[in-house]
Amino acid sequence: VSDDFGTFTLPYCSFTAADADGARVGVGVGTSVLDLTAAAATVVPAHAHLFAAGTLDVFMAAGADAWHKVREALLVGDLPAEHLRGQDEVRLVMPFAVADYVDFYASEHHASNLGRIFRPDSEPLTPNWKHLPIGYHGRSGTVVVSGTTVVRPCGQRRAAGGDITVGPSARLDIEAELGFVVGAASDLGTPVGVEDFARHVFGVCLVNDWSARDIQAWEYVPLGPFLGKSFATSISPWIVPLAALDTARIAGPTQDPTPVDYLVPGEPWGLDIALEVELNGEVISRPPFAEMYWTGAQMLAHMTANGASLRTGDLFASGTISGPGVDQRGALIEITWNGTEPITVADGSQRGYLEDGDSVVIRATAPGPGGQRVVLGAVEGTIAPARDAS
Amino acid sequence: VSDDFGTFTLPYCSFTAADADGARVGVGVGTSVLDLTAAAATVVPAHAHLFAAGTLDVFMAAGADAWHKVREALLVGDLPAEHLRGQDEVRLVMPFAVADYVDFYASEHHASNLGRIFRPDSEPLTPNWKHLPIGYHGRSGTVVVSGTTVVRPCGQRRAAGGDITVGPSARLDIEAELGFVVGAASDLGTPVGVEDFARHVFGVCLVNDWSARDIQAWEYVPLGPFLGKSFATSISPWIVPLAALDTARIAGPTQDPTPVDYLVPGEPWGLDIALEVELNGEVISRPPFAEMYWTGAQMLAHMTANGASLRTGDLFASGTISGPGVDQRGALIEITWNGTEPITVADGSQRGYLEDGDSVVIRATAPGPGGQRVVLGAVEGTIAPARDAS
Repeated sequence: VSDDFGTFTLPYCSFTAADADGARVGVGVGTSVLDLTAAAATVVPAHAHLFAAGTLDVFMAAGADAWHKVREALLVGDLPAEHLRGQDEVRLVMPFAVADYVDFYASEHHASNLGRIFRPDSEPLTPNWKHLPIGYHGRSGTVVVSGTTVVRPCGQRRAAGGDITVGPSARLDIEAELGFVVGAASDLGTPVGVEDFARHVFGVCLVNDWSARDIQAWEYVPLGPFLGKSFATSISPWIVPLAALDTARIAGPTQDPTPVDYLVPGEPWGLDIALEVELNGEVISRPPFAEMYWTGAQMLAHMTANGASLRTGDLFASGTISGPGVDQRGALIEITWNGTEPITVADGSQRGYLEDGDSVVIRATAPGPGGQRVVLGAVEGTIAPARDAS
Repeated sequence: VSDDFGTFTLPYCSFTAADADGARVGVGVGTSVLDLTAAAATVVPAHAHLFAAGTLDVFMAAGADAWHKVREALLVGDLPAEHLRGQDEVRLVMPFAVADYVDFYASEHHASNLGRIFRPDSEPLTPNWKHLPIGYHGRSGTVVVSGTTVVRPCGQRRAAGGDITVGPSARLDIEAELGFVVGAASDLGTPVGVEDFARHVFGVCLVNDWSARDIQAWEYVPLGPFLGKSFATSISPWIVPLAALDTARIAGPTQDPTPVDYLVPGEPWGLDIALEVELNGEVISRPPFAEMYWTGAQMLAHMTANGASLRTGDLFASGTISGPGVDQRGALIEITWNGTEPITVADGSQRGYLEDGDSVVIRATAPGPGGQRVVLGAVEGTIAPARDAS
């Protein structure tokens, strides 16, 4: 998967290359990668020490002032040609060490669809849904970089007739999400308000939160999703700096009822990001992030309202992005209505859920200044057969 | 809080001291601490490099063979007096970096009590409870060492009448738990069976999983506990090696129905550990770990059944330990039946839940060889007033 980032997005990555020592911090420029670990001494000399380690952790921890100075230098600077490589010459690796991973549930359309599917006799949204951004902690140790093969998980599930069996998941799904990456840490006991979003969040990535719906359905009451999610979560190797999304900021949908004080939006932090979900080379959905009910700033304020601290590398994702249209849903469970309305894929076969060998790519762009597009960098994953069919 | 570990337990810690450079790995011997970072060159010369960094991470990652060789040397060796310090001369710090934190729900008595309190018209246990050890991921970034002050969290909750308010939790609780600390990592995609428990688990600690019941009650449907837990989780500074618990191993309660294949117990991994919960200096409960329905080995097998990998520093806790007796419950919500049956504490006042200034200590011992007691090292926390009464 190769992306053309133009000259405005300037996303960051970590890469290795056959002819380079260890991991390097890279910057996406057009279809090239600038080796910032090598080029920093000339391009951003005062900040060169932030890129020595080859991943983004040190740079992310340095805070918003450093992020802005480095981006400004990259935007105006002549980038040294000797440190530019083709994307095909490098191997993109995990760009940062994931500290805590939190997954939200911030799309009203997604939450309503799942409510209708799983609890057809109740109100689609739970009573708390419009009062707080619902979220839960996921497994940070199994967040993997785009391109990592996803082995179909095995697990325990209960059939409609009540039989409990163990075996490969038969309802393996995707969730197309946006992830927010925390750079600057915060102190235990001190909430971070919506107004401090840009001081703590370094940038965004795309997330595919793979989900085994059969495992999840049997395990999740009363403590939430666990093994149905923890086998793999893929992220794009590119982290787009928050500053690149300035032009994409929008107010987002009206929130009714008005949220409690600590969730009142303040400056607009909705984002007009357009996603595409591709299954085996064909676009099957176009989820609009602009439709998300809760913003990233509200998620951050909620996550820390109890005094929970932030660490560099915390990743919080939006939850599945689904719009109102049937062609705007970010998960197969919604697209195929839990497998009851299968779709036809490129080779003419049908899909309720993912088959072994299926490949999923999620892409996204957003408006930039002067008609340019900000490009988020794709996240890709291919399904391998289960290792143990017990 | 000072502990007398005798000469068999030999728990590990990390400490700092005014007259020592940086953190050191310590071993609890009687009421003293052996500075293993200093003493390793003479006591365990072949493994001295594992203790240079001053926390347990490198030693834990080294695997079971290294753990056993070091323990054998400590058990038989003459420990150099010049490297022994009093516990009161050192400051105990976080003994390892927490990778992922998972909390289980493995006590049938606890799960049944909570079912009766929250869902009085339904079966106390959910249909899945006896088929798999229910668990969820918690926030690893807010796991803190014993002695850390716990600031009363603020948050959103809904009153019985339906009003939604934000403010300091009025139902702040404890959860007395046992934590298992993973040393040896495992590969993504490869489940770890019950028979491999001792190859991956380095040792155990005591855990107090502080819980804000009002915040939790409003937020937890459908994705599980989040802010009601994520403000703080305290662990004992001492990690007791699994080998020290050999004499404490028991079969545990009969499991009916028989679990699915990957959860069949194999060797007994129940543990006869007796806990005491002390509130403001007075014992209010004696939870028996021997009564836990699911064993640590079953929790580990379940957590990895989907191929999720383990990392050095993963912490998985048992969930609240409650026995059948009213004086054996590990959380105030059960002891006071959600505040409706308050208890009288040392100064004669009453408690449904914790007040500011309350101090909770959890201690535990287990049978060792020849009539000795294995001592787990206490976990203590005191409640400070909320910082923001908005």
